[in-house]
Amino acid sequence: MNLRIYDPETARKTLLQRQPPDVQDVPAAVRERIQALFGEPLTPAQAVARILADVRTGGDAALRRWSQHLDGWTASDFRLPPTELQRALAHLSSDLREALESAAERIEAFHRRQPLTSWITQDLGGTLGQLVRPLRRVGIYVPGGSAPLPSTVLMSAIPARVAGVREIVLVTPPQRGSDRPAEIILAAAALAGVSEVYVIGGAQAIAALAYGTETIPRVDKIVGPGNLFVTLAKQQVFGVVGIDGLAGPTETVVIADETANPEWVAADLLAQAEHDVLAAAIMLTPSETLAYQVQQAVARQVAQLPRKDILALSLVGRSGIVLTRDLEEAIALSNAYAPEHLNLVVADPWRWVEKIESAGGIFVGEHSYEVLGDYAAGPSHVMPTGGSARFASPLNVWDFVRLISLVALDPRTAAEVGRVSAQLARAEGLEAHARAADLRAATANS
Amino acid sequence: MNLRIYDPETARKTLLQRQPPDVQDVPAAVRERIQALFGEPLTPAQAVARILADVRTGGDAALRRWSQHLDGWTASDFRLPPTELQRALAHLSSDLREALESAAERIEAFHRRQPLTSWITQDLGGTLGQLVRPLRRVGIYVPGGSAPLPSTVLMSAIPARVAGVREIVLVTPPQRGSDRPAEIILAAAALAGVSEVYVIGGAQAIAALAYGTETIPRVDKIVGPGNLFVTLAKQQVFGVVGIDGLAGPTETVVIADETANPEWVAADLLAQAEHDVLAAAIMLTPSETLAYQVQQAVARQVAQLPRKDILALSLVGRSGIVLTRDLEEAIALSNAYAPEHLNLVVADPWRWVEKIESAGGIFVGEHSYEVLGDYAAGPSHVMPTGGSARFASPLNVWDFVRLISLVALDPRTAAEVGRVSAQLARAEGLEAHARAADLRAATANS
Repeated sequence: MNLRIYDPETARKTLLQRQPPDVQDVPAAVRERIQALFGEPLTPAQAVARILADVRTGGDAALRRWSQHLDGWTASDFRLPPTELQRALAHLSSDLREALESAAERIEAFHRRQPLTSWITQDLGGTLGQLVRPLRRVGIYVPGGSAPLPSTVLMSAIPARVAGVREIVLVTPPQRGSDRPAEIILAAAALAGVSEVYVIGGAQAIAALAYGTETIPRVDKIVGPGNLFVTLAKQQVFGVVGIDGLAGPTETVVIADETANPEWVAADLLAQAEHDVLAAAIMLTPSETLAYQVQQAVARQVAQLPRKDILALSLVGRSGIVLTRDLEEAIALSNAYAPEHLNLVVADPWRWVEKIESAGGIFVGEHSYEVLGDYAAGPSHVMPTGGSARFASPLNVWDFVRLISLVALDPRTAAEVGRVSAQLARAEGLEAHARAADLRAATANS
Repeated sequence: MNLRIYDPETARKTLLQRQPPDVQDVPAAVRERIQALFGEPLTPAQAVARILADVRTGGDAALRRWSQHLDGWTASDFRLPPTELQRALAHLSSDLREALESAAERIEAFHRRQPLTSWITQDLGGTLGQLVRPLRRVGIYVPGGSAPLPSTVLMSAIPARVAGVREIVLVTPPQRGSDRPAEIILAAAALAGVSEVYVIGGAQAIAALAYGTETIPRVDKIVGPGNLFVTLAKQQVFGVVGIDGLAGPTETVVIADETANPEWVAADLLAQAEHDVLAAAIMLTPSETLAYQVQQAVARQVAQLPRKDILALSLVGRSGIVLTRDLEEAIALSNAYAPEHLNLVVADPWRWVEKIESAGGIFVGEHSYEVLGDYAAGPSHVMPTGGSARFASPLNVWDFVRLISLVALDPRTAAEVGRVSAQLARAEGLEAHARAADLRAATANS
């Protein structure tokens, strides 16, 4: 198991080519599971639509039924007593607690510096501007899976708290073999300012957050990563609630030149590749020497790692090394790919930062490797995947507010704008619009 | 035909109650049209999914086929020569041209004042921050319908241009009975800085923008209002491209007290109600006197208006007057409803502005009526409908950029953050993550 070396032309057509979410082949295992659970060969989107419709009309009872049916788990009350959060924090080992606190502090410090303010102008004939209002109630989905992810709790909830959201609701499935989340998840929730925890996962949890049930009040927006079913559920409830985006498999592109330390780059690629069999760990380099050195370092390091079953698939799946003509070509390939993470490990990284058009995050130089961004560098690790960095941003405080436009014209400006508006309204065939303006003008002239 | 007066309790359960988009009853006419066009009783979402899948794989040929089948219109090339835009502007009457220019100037002036800037901090142990990058290519949908809507061209394209978007693509169906859009649409496009126009509408136009065809390069984000099919198409392509939101029927809430001019309020409600049979024109007032005066004024004014067929339905549909106990109750009802437009026509409007939690736009005082916002006050008239002001904002320059998080830690901070990260990574079972940090620490200590 090792990284394959591609030429740019082949890479463009294979490694760097991504299909939008809904035409990806559904793995046979998923198809079979749906057939078993639903008794017919539904697509994942159809299966999700059924769950959503059912929870929407059936409330808590439907929620319990789906949770039992899909996850073999249910509860009479999904809500965890809020006191459990502080208790979990108090019982955490002091090492882990300090690590979580240190991460939380940097994440908060970073997001507090993000400009976020209402604005007003008085030089357009009155008072105009936009008011920033925090969302009232936000839902954060944290996946279950093989290991608990306290970092995702911090990375999602802290920007919400900084934005001023009062009600931050965490939903997460129980830990495997238990009826509640891992203690470290609850401890992270306590630190991040989570106000409610519901132990429920999957598309049914998204339905509960979007529509509300008898015991779970609906939220205004749902954020956070999840599996295929959670992601499809988020897409389908978009519009009923806000969502942050559709999370796909994670991706890192490392652009490196001959000055890079091959052992470090290899470690960074392996850190990326261990996430998941679909994870993409890609190095773009004009240095043939580095390419081979990294290949060898990956082979050496992988032998000493756990999660070999995942690495065996991810290293030969969406990962690889692309030998480019020069750094310009590497940047161009990266911009077209629009990676979630981009690490610049080159002699003069700042020279290239301005040329990066699309990426969730840029990690500048070999001391700012992506693992630091996963935990404690400061920015949220919830970043756009699957090429959505073309149009989407990392999770940030703006995701947790909305704007209200403010129009308070002085009477003279209102009269001028009224004349223009009446004229355009008539061109659009909207006579009642025009008359609302005429009426003011008539009163002013009388 | 007139506005009904509701008590708050009844209003909460009827007038002010909105169903999320996908459970609204599909009108019989739509059902029959789908049956006729598709030969089977598909839901609108299923019909849209077919069109999207077909254009995605079939490209231009599928686009032509659907346009012919659904709209009875097709072309060998949907692209309008760019010279047509300036030509349309040059041929516009000078009155209309001045009105469009005046509106465009105010819209641009307003959006240029919106804060939008990259930020950097150097006090977190290195250089961290977020870079603002304009989207590269944006698609704007402008509906056809009974009358051309040049205002929507200005309100969508100008914020994009202000944000720095280079490629602004307009798609719009041909004017009824013609093979091209109205000249005033093209003139507005010229003023707003549109770079390409494709004469195509419906879900097939959204598919072309999202996936691209042989002749229409895909865009990064699609904005602008449309009918049910366009809206469902936007929902289904969300994730493949960015979208601004799902537009529903337009809404205005007027909160008024006894100081309001009933003729003006009536005119404003009628302007709202003439949009569309589903439009909501709602007054909330504690003044019984005003309620009856507005009722009478509406009855008088409506008699002199065209579009009576629309008004006859919209005035008794989602529109009405709610008699509240006091202004506090009116504000509370409005916040729960989260209207697209909110007009404050009360003695001391500024006192109430801070209490408004959810609205697309606040129009302060009777000189700042909503019609001005439709055309030329400054803010975009593309505002969140259907209660989505709970989580969404009016279209603004932030819709046309994305952020890239920037992480450049100094080596000492990187070492500290590395220790924290390794600890949290091990708690999450991600050993390769921890080793990427360990490796740096080992080198630093050796």
